[in-house]
Amino acid sequence: MTGNLDFTGALARVRPHAWRTPVIPLDLPGGPPACMKLESLQHTGSFKVRGAANRLHKLSAQEREAGVVAASSGNHGRAVATVAARLGTPATICVPDWVDPSKLRAIRATGARVVMAGPSYDEAEERARTMAETAGMALVHAFDDPDVIEGQGTLGVELARQLPDVEEVIVPLSGGGLAAGVGLALRDRGVRLVAVSARRARVMFRSLETGHPIELPDEETIASALSGGIGLDNRLTFAICGSVIDEHVVVEESDIRAAVARAFREHRLVVEGGGAVGLAALWSGRYRPQGPAAVIVSGGNVDRSLLKDLVTGG
Amino acid sequence: MTGNLDFTGALARVRPHAWRTPVIPLDLPGGPPACMKLESLQHTGSFKVRGAANRLHKLSAQEREAGVVAASSGNHGRAVATVAARLGTPATICVPDWVDPSKLRAIRATGARVVMAGPSYDEAEERARTMAETAGMALVHAFDDPDVIEGQGTLGVELARQLPDVEEVIVPLSGGGLAAGVGLALRDRGVRLVAVSARRARVMFRSLETGHPIELPDEETIASALSGGIGLDNRLTFAICGSVIDEHVVVEESDIRAAVARAFREHRLVVEGGGAVGLAALWSGRYRPQGPAAVIVSGGNVDRSLLKDLVTGG
Repeated sequence: MTGNLDFTGALARVRPHAWRTPVIPLDLPGGPPACMKLESLQHTGSFKVRGAANRLHKLSAQEREAGVVAASSGNHGRAVATVAARLGTPATICVPDWVDPSKLRAIRATGARVVMAGPSYDEAEERARTMAETAGMALVHAFDDPDVIEGQGTLGVELARQLPDVEEVIVPLSGGGLAAGVGLALRDRGVRLVAVSARRARVMFRSLETGHPIELPDEETIASALSGGIGLDNRLTFAICGSVIDEHVVVEESDIRAAVARAFREHRLVVEGGGAVGLAALWSGRYRPQGPAAVIVSGGNVDRSLLKDLVTGG
Repeated sequence: MTGNLDFTGALARVRPHAWRTPVIPLDLPGGPPACMKLESLQHTGSFKVRGAANRLHKLSAQEREAGVVAASSGNHGRAVATVAARLGTPATICVPDWVDPSKLRAIRATGARVVMAGPSYDEAEERARTMAETAGMALVHAFDDPDVIEGQGTLGVELARQLPDVEEVIVPLSGGGLAAGVGLALRDRGVRLVAVSARRARVMFRSLETGHPIELPDEETIASALSGGIGLDNRLTFAICGSVIDEHVVVEESDIRAAVARAFREHRLVVEGGGAVGLAALWSGRYRPQGPAAVIVSGGNVDRSLLKDLVTGG
């Protein structure tokens, strides 16, 4: 079903919208050499712009004119809205009521139409699906779409060029688009894929344990970017994640909170909760890499009030 | 006097202590392509570790054993103390009373001895000089030293490899070690060197205007890393800066404050005032590059209270 993904081709499509984000060293005393890949410094503040750009570039002229619709907890919506604005494509973004206010502002700033869809991510997704069908707009799914997976996989291609000796990649896990893309892009290199879920947003983890996609209620979490279901009718990411993930780690709210604060204090990096789960896995000691490792710091769109709490030691 | 500087050789000496910092795009609407070189993400939080590492690696075994002493407003002291600790060399750092508390903590954390030298940077420098003479320790000057200049120049070598087409480099100016090193390292490439002074720390700028090194009283500034004199007996940086700087820009406190806040809000970067003067020159419109430009964001050691202001929008 994804045998024909072309990550190198996708990189060329994605490049005008997403730059090659930096890799910087991460000191793990007593551990192997490690690095952070800073998608928190990516255009739009997260890796999501890669998948959005790839998907939108593959639309026909007619589809682009009709506009696109997406459901998102924030980062995917911002990415879709930003790429759409650049391409002159109308965009509608359906968000759950708990969307991070800073992400909402950024989406609105692109000129996209925003639909507040209700208290759960699944409602936002349902609304986007209905609008796509009734209004003839292309649905840009946040993860369960081959073009989006192919776009996220460009991060893996980049990483392999930046760190040819990397043996482990530690990646946040939510709907599985990033893990699937990076996992497929690096599959032939023998790289070990370590996926990290937040305890309060672990539906993919539990689905893989159970053997089929399940539903869990949305829980409030500092890693809100990882919230939301994977869809009971998941077509791609559940199966791909089951095949490409070598190890699974679950981190707690307190681990994530500490990681966001430490990244800020010690590394002068602004990282959101969902973007920090890989660091949380390492710094909490819940995961210890066996060989040269890269942690994907996937997003930096942190809400101001949270950052204030962390900076002031709250 | 500096004809024999070997920046490529210095890069090999410096590399174990200072990583190749990333370059990321900076969007200047209507302007040429521009990038930021993020020394704010450098080990120890500033470029100063380059000069310190180069100088300390050139000491004899006997000199290393006797220990080193340095005067610093913070970043240079932290860099010297960090490299010295790694090499097992005792370090004494003389600081003015107004040293940034976060930098002071970082210096102390290395195990270095700290001397609070009085209300001005010049007193810290005087104290360091006296201690070097009386206690037989090697003085590691923050800027007016060929090994330190050579070390800072490694940033220029790196930048030229990362951005072969760069035509202008915009660099913060204080004692002139960074401007001198980068200017000399890039001299043969026809790169235009634009030096930016903070209004309240512009002693090199005024000295160059006057035609000889002058003294100015320390003024309080958000760019405290740029404070301090250049020495009436300046041996190197005054002359080199006079020869390598193509253009000079002076920015105001309000420009710098706005740049620190904007770097944080829009780019998720923690940058200190002294590190943000290049961005301040561009974003205030006081300087407009004519060709592909790189701005050196030289440090990120922001004090907690300033950070708190930024995060809370104060």
